[in-house]
Amino acid sequence: MKKFINDPKNLVAELLEGFAISHRKLISVKSDKIICRSIAKPENKVALVSMSGSGHEPALCGFVGEGMLDYTVAGEIFAAPGPPKVIEALRMSKRKAGTFFLVFNHAGDVLSAGMAAEMAEQEGILFKQFLVCDDIAPGAVAPAEDRRGLVGGLMVAKIAGAAAEEGKSLDEVYAVAKRFHDHLATLGVALQTATHPASGHAMFHLADDEMEIGMGSHGEAGSGPCKLMTADQTAAMTLSRLVPAIQAAAGDRVILMINGAGATTLMEMYIVMRGCKNWLDARGITLVAAPCGEFLTVQEMAGFQMSIAKVDDELLRYWNAPCHTPALNFK
Amino acid sequence: MKKFINDPKNLVAELLEGFAISHRKLISVKSDKIICRSIAKPENKVALVSMSGSGHEPALCGFVGEGMLDYTVAGEIFAAPGPPKVIEALRMSKRKAGTFFLVFNHAGDVLSAGMAAEMAEQEGILFKQFLVCDDIAPGAVAPAEDRRGLVGGLMVAKIAGAAAEEGKSLDEVYAVAKRFHDHLATLGVALQTATHPASGHAMFHLADDEMEIGMGSHGEAGSGPCKLMTADQTAAMTLSRLVPAIQAAAGDRVILMINGAGATTLMEMYIVMRGCKNWLDARGITLVAAPCGEFLTVQEMAGFQMSIAKVDDELLRYWNAPCHTPALNFK
Repeated sequence: MKKFINDPKNLVAELLEGFAISHRKLISVKSDKIICRSIAKPENKVALVSMSGSGHEPALCGFVGEGMLDYTVAGEIFAAPGPPKVIEALRMSKRKAGTFFLVFNHAGDVLSAGMAAEMAEQEGILFKQFLVCDDIAPGAVAPAEDRRGLVGGLMVAKIAGAAAEEGKSLDEVYAVAKRFHDHLATLGVALQTATHPASGHAMFHLADDEMEIGMGSHGEAGSGPCKLMTADQTAAMTLSRLVPAIQAAAGDRVILMINGAGATTLMEMYIVMRGCKNWLDARGITLVAAPCGEFLTVQEMAGFQMSIAKVDDELLRYWNAPCHTPALNFK
Repeated sequence: MKKFINDPKNLVAELLEGFAISHRKLISVKSDKIICRSIAKPENKVALVSMSGSGHEPALCGFVGEGMLDYTVAGEIFAAPGPPKVIEALRMSKRKAGTFFLVFNHAGDVLSAGMAAEMAEQEGILFKQFLVCDDIAPGAVAPAEDRRGLVGGLMVAKIAGAAAEEGKSLDEVYAVAKRFHDHLATLGVALQTATHPASGHAMFHLADDEMEIGMGSHGEAGSGPCKLMTADQTAAMTLSRLVPAIQAAAGDRVILMINGAGATTLMEMYIVMRGCKNWLDARGITLVAAPCGEFLTVQEMAGFQMSIAKVDDELLRYWNAPCHTPALNFK
């Protein structure tokens, strides 16, 4: 394995230490694995808590800050954090306004979140749990539990975070997030495997002329390999599956995010974004925001996840609201 | 080659089109290859112009915006833009306050900049040209022309951009940039090659257990391969060369940037950053800012460049000043 690491046992502790050094103005790391804002959100506003395995940097720790998450709990590499840390974060967030608890649909996260939520209820912590399941690889109409929580969850955090920052109640924040999530879909495309930084093993295999559609955030299999396509072909293929899933048609407005998996260059992402804009333009769908970059990675995997959301005036206003986090900054 | 592209002939035009779609609030692309701020800087302030080959995204186009560059000219992949485009950008920037013209030391850029500068002089454009040569791979005391202009040049753009934004004169902006550059040093470390996206060829070769020190922004050879080190060893090795080069000692303050070459994860960069902080702490040198991320890439090369600068109160104030660009945002 060719990675700049020390003892693989200390990966997460060391990476969080470095993360806190780089971004100390915005965030701090408390109690080992809990990342929180440097300047706490006022108590009269809804707090946002989330959780995920590490190894996906900048996600999730990179999205803690004004306008997004208040607390996030880091697990080991590609592994959900255990319930004790999650309940600790929920306790830290405790307030009358309540906590919006954002969970990405992966078995480990759901299990850990469920146990922490049970404890939180017993302790009288006011919260609402929201499950992100934006992956359409298993089909857009597959039951929620079959759809993984992918990078679209970060867009939910942006929308819900802005609503919370505006002073919306917990029920309102939840309703806004649900409305956004109802028309949100994500699909992954992989070109090249990544190496698990703790085990040193390649995560999957693809031939030199193959790509795979529908891969998960940890290299979970998608719909199987297919022949490598050009950027424009890839844009058309992903959008022709994503756009029906969010029921967007001529006259609608969408936000489209391209999230690099790790080794795919920004150059490629911009070229794909151009292809997407042309595809949408030809169908009368207006692209109102087009974030492009590495938001939730899978180590040095080559590929990307594309997320698309249909928005109305209110949702677009939340998307464009200021946020100041290590990885996303809107003025 | 496994990349999401269309016709390799159109790489730069297409990537800039996508870039403009993603960041249209901050920047726009004029006259094909010239990137400029969406909201122009007032005429009474010094403009900043720079130039570079493409394929290094987000650099340089990602650093156009309030507090950094006003105009940048994109060349083909890894190739300097020609003099006609460069003189066009200098003309766009023309103003009584003058233009700070930032050139990274690479043969093609220097040649093209020199020809454009000659024309600009004849046309009565007020400007001062500044050559970035921060690479210490050939030795810290090597003559300027032997030292390549690497990612440290982006830090110069940040400092000079803040001084310009504050209303400093052209001579003052130049003097501030020079003072910063006098104690700025960069060193690259490569683990894995990248593929040239136009030719499809691997740029160099390294064995499975090797790394190379001193590699340039296009995979130019460094001091030859050496055995792979841990993150902490790599931090110590690079800093023990960089810190003497900027003449930093106990009591000094430094900014340290870790710039991912493309495929190296943020996880690794944070782990290296942690090692650097420990190394500096042990020597009484204070780390006052620690940017970490992909600023100037070499396609999907694995490795990083580390830049360090010794700063005083004024330089640190410029570093911390607000900036709003696609790739760097300080509130």
